[in-house]
Amino acid sequence: DNSNANTGPVVFGYAQITGSQQFGTNGPEGLVFGAHRIRLGFKGEAVPGVSYFFQYKWDGAWQSTPLNNTLGIGAIPGSSSGVQDAYINFAFIPEVQLQVGKFRVPVGLERTQYSGNNLLFIQRSMNQSLGANRSAGVMFHSPDLMNTGVYYSLGIFDNHSLDGNDAFNSGNVALPVGAGQTAVGGVLTNGSGQYLFGGMLGYKMGPLLNVELSGARAAAAKYTALPASKEIDSWNVGANGGLMGLKYMAEYSAVTSYQGIEGANAQDWYVALAANLHQMTLTPDWLDVEPAVRYESFRYRYGAFNSTLGNTTIGVNYYVNPNNPYAARVQLNYVIPNGGGAWRAIGTNSPASNGYLYNTLALQFQAGF
Amino acid sequence: DNSNANTGPVVFGYAQITGSQQFGTNGPEGLVFGAHRIRLGFKGEAVPGVSYFFQYKWDGAWQSTPLNNTLGIGAIPGSSSGVQDAYINFAFIPEVQLQVGKFRVPVGLERTQYSGNNLLFIQRSMNQSLGANRSAGVMFHSPDLMNTGVYYSLGIFDNHSLDGNDAFNSGNVALPVGAGQTAVGGVLTNGSGQYLFGGMLGYKMGPLLNVELSGARAAAAKYTALPASKEIDSWNVGANGGLMGLKYMAEYSAVTSYQGIEGANAQDWYVALAANLHQMTLTPDWLDVEPAVRYESFRYRYGAFNSTLGNTTIGVNYYVNPNNPYAARVQLNYVIPNGGGAWRAIGTNSPASNGYLYNTLALQFQAGF
Amino acid sequence: DNSNANTGPVVFGYAQITGSQQFGTNGPEGLVFGAHRIRLGFKGEAVPGVSYFFQYKWDGAWQSTPLNNTLGIGAIPGSSSGVQDAYINFAFIPEVQLQVGKFRVPVGLERTQYSGNNLLFIQRSMNQSLGANRSAGVMFHSPDLMNTGVYYSLGIFDNHSLDGNDAFNSGNVALPVGAGQTAVGGVLTNGSGQYLFGGMLGYKMGPLLNVELSGARAAAAKYTALPASKEIDSWNVGANGGLMGLKYMAEYSAVTSYQGIEGANAQDWYVALAANLHQMTLTPDWLDVEPAVRYESFRYRYGAFNSTLGNTTIGVNYYVNPNNPYAARVQLNYVIPNGGGAWRAIGTNSPASNGYLYNTLALQFQAGF
Repeated sequence: DNSNANTGPVVFGYAQITGSQQFGTNGPEGLVFGAHRIRLGFKGEAVPGVSYFFQYKWDGAWQSTPLNNTLGIGAIPGSSSGVQDAYINFAFIPEVQLQVGKFRVPVGLERTQYSGNNLLFIQRSMNQSLGANRSAGVMFHSPDLMNTGVYYSLGIFDNHSLDGNDAFNSGNVALPVGAGQTAVGGVLTNGSGQYLFGGMLGYKMGPLLNVELSGARAAAAKYTALPASKEIDSWNVGANGGLMGLKYMAEYSAVTSYQGIEGANAQDWYVALAANLHQMTLTPDWLDVEPAVRYESFRYRYGAFNSTLGNTTIGVNYYVNPNNPYAARVQLNYVIPNGGGAWRAIGTNSPASNGYLYNTLALQFQAGF
Repeated sequence: DNSNANTGPVVFGYAQITGSQQFGTNGPEGLVFGAHRIRLGFKGEAVPGVSYFFQYKWDGAWQSTPLNNTLGIGAIPGSSSGVQDAYINFAFIPEVQLQVGKFRVPVGLERTQYSGNNLLFIQRSMNQSLGANRSAGVMFHSPDLMNTGVYYSLGIFDNHSLDGNDAFNSGNVALPVGAGQTAVGGVLTNGSGQYLFGGMLGYKMGPLLNVELSGARAAAAKYTALPASKEIDSWNVGANGGLMGLKYMAEYSAVTSYQGIEGANAQDWYVALAANLHQMTLTPDWLDVEPAVRYESFRYRYGAFNSTLGNTTIGVNYYVNPNNPYAARVQLNYVIPNGGGAWRAIGTNSPASNGYLYNTLALQFQAGF
Repeated sequence: DNSNANTGPVVFGYAQITGSQQFGTNGPEGLVFGAHRIRLGFKGEAVPGVSYFFQYKWDGAWQSTPLNNTLGIGAIPGSSSGVQDAYINFAFIPEVQLQVGKFRVPVGLERTQYSGNNLLFIQRSMNQSLGANRSAGVMFHSPDLMNTGVYYSLGIFDNHSLDGNDAFNSGNVALPVGAGQTAVGGVLTNGSGQYLFGGMLGYKMGPLLNVELSGARAAAAKYTALPASKEIDSWNVGANGGLMGLKYMAEYSAVTSYQGIEGANAQDWYVALAANLHQMTLTPDWLDVEPAVRYESFRYRYGAFNSTLGNTTIGVNYYVNPNNPYAARVQLNYVIPNGGGAWRAIGTNSPASNGYLYNTLALQFQAGF
């Protein structure tokens, strides 16, 4: 488009309505209804070469007044809403594009290359707690370096992850805010000179194979927090691809000094397979179903705690319309954990915050535009 | 539409700006400005047979910083914002449609069949505090069973109403959340097996007559709350209709064990009439006015408290453009209460939370799209 | 448009991503990333003669969970989100239009005639803390009285400014809420009879000259707050204009009884100049740059405190596309304060809340639609 008129904005969004039940809790059990993700966004091209992306989330937002407020029970999680992404991309030089704002730190295959509405399973893998989710920063990147299939991202961010429950969100990393007055007109005026660095290098060889290697590092707190707080390092390698309806996906991640705690180390790996029977021409148009299975193992060690949590997820995805698969979809997952006992003892804010600790049935309805 | 392309999203919304003043308070009096409802939503068809509806509210949101925060005075109510509706509807079988998400519990004529932007009066009747507003759940329904005019809804919901100040929103109903770990990726993983059931059966015989019978039941808390907490039952019958500019509307509701309190019972009834002079061809196009009147009586009994609150509302509605009446409208109401003294004593969180306790003038400007 | 169909809604929005660093703080220093303003709005004509305007803000909303929550450090400011504007305008009589809702109090040239996305500098002048920002109310106005170039606004508002850190936002002004019950259905039912009055009279003589005179007054609290609380008076005079790429802008404001405190007085003045080299035909289309400079002086006196803060801002604005200048823009500002020492001592909530107290570099990326 060479015109001066802007294109867009395009509005996009989706909703995921869930039902879930655990088994073997030795307490009350039953289906509980809720919403997983509700998202709404605007994207477009402001002028040629400059594009914007804005996404708002109401995650778990199945209630106007968070349930815990209504019932006065702090143990029940409420909704989590906020600005998920807000960035501007300058693509004057396609091989060295500049992105500024709040967006994904380039660590992890599933975290950075899958949207919440096209995941193979209802929940992301536990792998995500070893990455840095999103943060505010500046990133250079190219999605396809001179048509070779090679892609890269290299970014500098606020010195912690802005979203919770992962390796980089902690009071043990150095504050991103420096000395003196800290806001004029709501804008922070000074940084600490301490940053989170993240980068990814990948190669996409058509639909059959996509591999990436990524990592991130955050500086430790110098003046506050634990005396033993250390810089956090995270490494990740992942691959995915498919052919004729078969899909595969695998990742391995390792973190040293999880959340800046010296001696706290975590590793995770998973392998996932899916077979779309309709794409294999085994089922008619009105029955676009896809069995899927994932095995994942998460390990965390700190002091006396040294445990592994396994999650086997068996799933079926049903796409209402094969020509627009993510516009309307139903997903059914059954998760079988092993080694959950040690993790139940340390509670839901453990490093494996995204893992299931009981046999669990989950059902999810999705609609989007 | 047989195409695979999705339709929509359609964006919709409206704003209601209000002014209000009480008389006879023996204290400072004057007009106060604010906003009643500000709503924005998206709806559409994701793929044929699957539709979505999303509505966000900023009610009372006439301020960025809630007034009580600014002035540090907790007695002044602030804004109430949140996800009002978020649901997906599957209409593959028109007579047995499946709706999942957060939406209205099918109890009450005005509550379920009137939107906030097409009410006859500025405020809903006090009747609404005897229903269950909205909750998260699953509902089977049909708007018109085989073209007979009969409609029904039958739903199962989280075991309390998610919005405040009604008969079902209480710590005395059983928790909807079961044992064990309660969230993975922000999604609740286990229910309590305790639910709120709601249903409505109705018949619409053209514009002249529409009648409905509806009810809901929620299980009482077993382990917490009042020792005497009981299951809540609510019944409602309503009718409305009209002819040639005349409109009528009436409801009766009764609740036993209001908010799960044994021995707390409430009843409400109202009759409303309106006469659209323009539809009666008594006024020209530029003067689409509609006088309206409603008499309502709300009774609540618990222990020594046994009082009735009456509200007589006299109103005039002015529609700027008869061809698009709810796009721009001005409403003027004057409310005369009787029996308000006993209710002033127990404060604004009483069961009749939607009733006026002083002679009050209210003025509302509405614009929508 | 004489049709009955409504026009719109038009969706509009913009994002401003910032980086900033102070110098000379004697502590950690570095760039800090964030977002200044993220805005999204809907506007349109509901029916002929009736229009609506709605704008939501996520200011400083570069994070889903405010940073201070994440890190548990109260001193770091978080995001500020809310309904920024929500009003309905009735233009049946063009010379006496009626606007109701929440909108800008008509005081101050920059505050009322510049949007956040077309400011000459990254930050508004300190002048804004001597006005009343936005409030809920009713206003009569005309943008151009019978094509003479004269414009006026005359409004009555809730008796304080609803947004923070200015002369009218204080617990020393009379409460806008009266006696008795204060909310029915979320709507305030009674005012105090105490209001904030604001008005502006201006004359726009083509692009060369625009002048305005404006003022506001709020009643003091009678029963609470400081014994010496007084009514607040604010006066403002401003002028701007330009020719062939040269732009100028100047304002003077004075407030007596700042925030209702007897004896607290503040004055502010600034002069700003900019030269758009592209409009002067000195640079080609791909280099639409604009050097700009502003000198501002803010003075506040209360008791023993009697100090002046000066801010000299040197800036360059780069517009990516001259035909759509505010769709994509980069701004670079360097601010040199003088007299900052006294203000550092009294902290960031001082009257000059929008002033810089250290030498500061600020960089801002903007994209809009």
